[in-house]
Amino acid sequence: MDAAVKGYERVIMGIDPGTNVMGYGVLGIKGRKPEVIVMGVIQLNKFESHYMRLHRIFERVTGIVEQYLPDELAIEAPFFGKNVQSMLKLGRAQGVAMAAALSRDIPIAEYAPLSIKQAVTGSGSASKERVAEMLKRMLHIPEEKMPHLLDATDALAAALTHFYETQKPQIAKGPKSWADFIAKNPDRVKK
Amino acid sequence: MDAAVKGYERVIMGIDPGTNVMGYGVLGIKGRKPEVIVMGVIQLNKFESHYMRLHRIFERVTGIVEQYLPDELAIEAPFFGKNVQSMLKLGRAQGVAMAAALSRDIPIAEYAPLSIKQAVTGSGSASKERVAEMLKRMLHIPEEKMPHLLDATDALAAALTHFYETQKPQIAKGPKSWADFIAKNPDRVKK
Repeated sequence: MDAAVKGYERVIMGIDPGTNVMGYGVLGIKGRKPEVIVMGVIQLNKFESHYMRLHRIFERVTGIVEQYLPDELAIEAPFFGKNVQSMLKLGRAQGVAMAAALSRDIPIAEYAPLSIKQAVTGSGSASKERVAEMLKRMLHIPEEKMPHLLDATDALAAALTHFYETQKPQIAKGPKSWADFIAKNPDRVKK
Repeated sequence: MDAAVKGYERVIMGIDPGTNVMGYGVLGIKGRKPEVIVMGVIQLNKFESHYMRLHRIFERVTGIVEQYLPDELAIEAPFFGKNVQSMLKLGRAQGVAMAAALSRDIPIAEYAPLSIKQAVTGSGSASKERVAEMLKRMLHIPEEKMPHLLDATDALAAALTHFYETQKPQIAKGPKSWADFIAKNPDRVKK
């Protein structure tokens, strides 16, 4: 465990999986406020073989998980792609990254790019630059620590979206009626 | 290591990844002849959550890898699917299964369903039943050991296809010259 994660109530890891570059960002929650622990990218371009890339993703994601011990993993997951070929490759990249989390029983949540943009900037059509700018302001990231590649900020945005989603009052998601409540909580019914 | 794999020159694991059922089959090579070590299926239908299914795949494939210590992994991999959604899910299932092999540095080879049918039955349009029947005859599998689900025989067929592919005369794939041979085999050069 990295000394950097000590003292956080919760650690959320975000990833933006891709087959050329994979972004990652780790948020620590302290007193209900999110702080950046680390963010960066895993460069995959240098590996020609598809398997080498998948191996690299698994190895690096496992390394980050072991170092920062996230409690949850948030993934930016597009639900549509150019074609079946690119979706199969993306699915594999997501799969190996997920395996690194699943092997340590870390729960996974996924968010569509539009939901992430919406949660961070208030607009589902915001640019990646706008997302990065909002993160910089909201999380007080010094200019020199801003990454060159927006895959890193996209990943951090996924982690932040997950934080917002799980901080929401749960009333709206609660049971709609007593019948619904009973159906969902059979063990709470006196027999 | 399972006692069952002792004495084999080579162990090849085949998998037929799916999101409802995943088939697996392990072949042992003894005196250049393939024998069935084990085959079966991983049932995923009982898990409602997509993540639970992926977790289960990773867990079971890791378990099989640890038990039978395959030298290579062969995957039946369709290159086309109904739609981008199903390909993304299939890619994830393949990805987590691959991660289990990649994490142990096991090389992966993939074969299209048509190539597997062609290699095993001589016809790319053979039915799954025909593939199973051919495996039964070629590998002398007793009737009582034939699986009920054809995902298992499909996985075994992937392993057998890989065996055939790698047994082919290596002339075409061999070193092109002594310079090439030496470059590829530095440990064979007397110093």
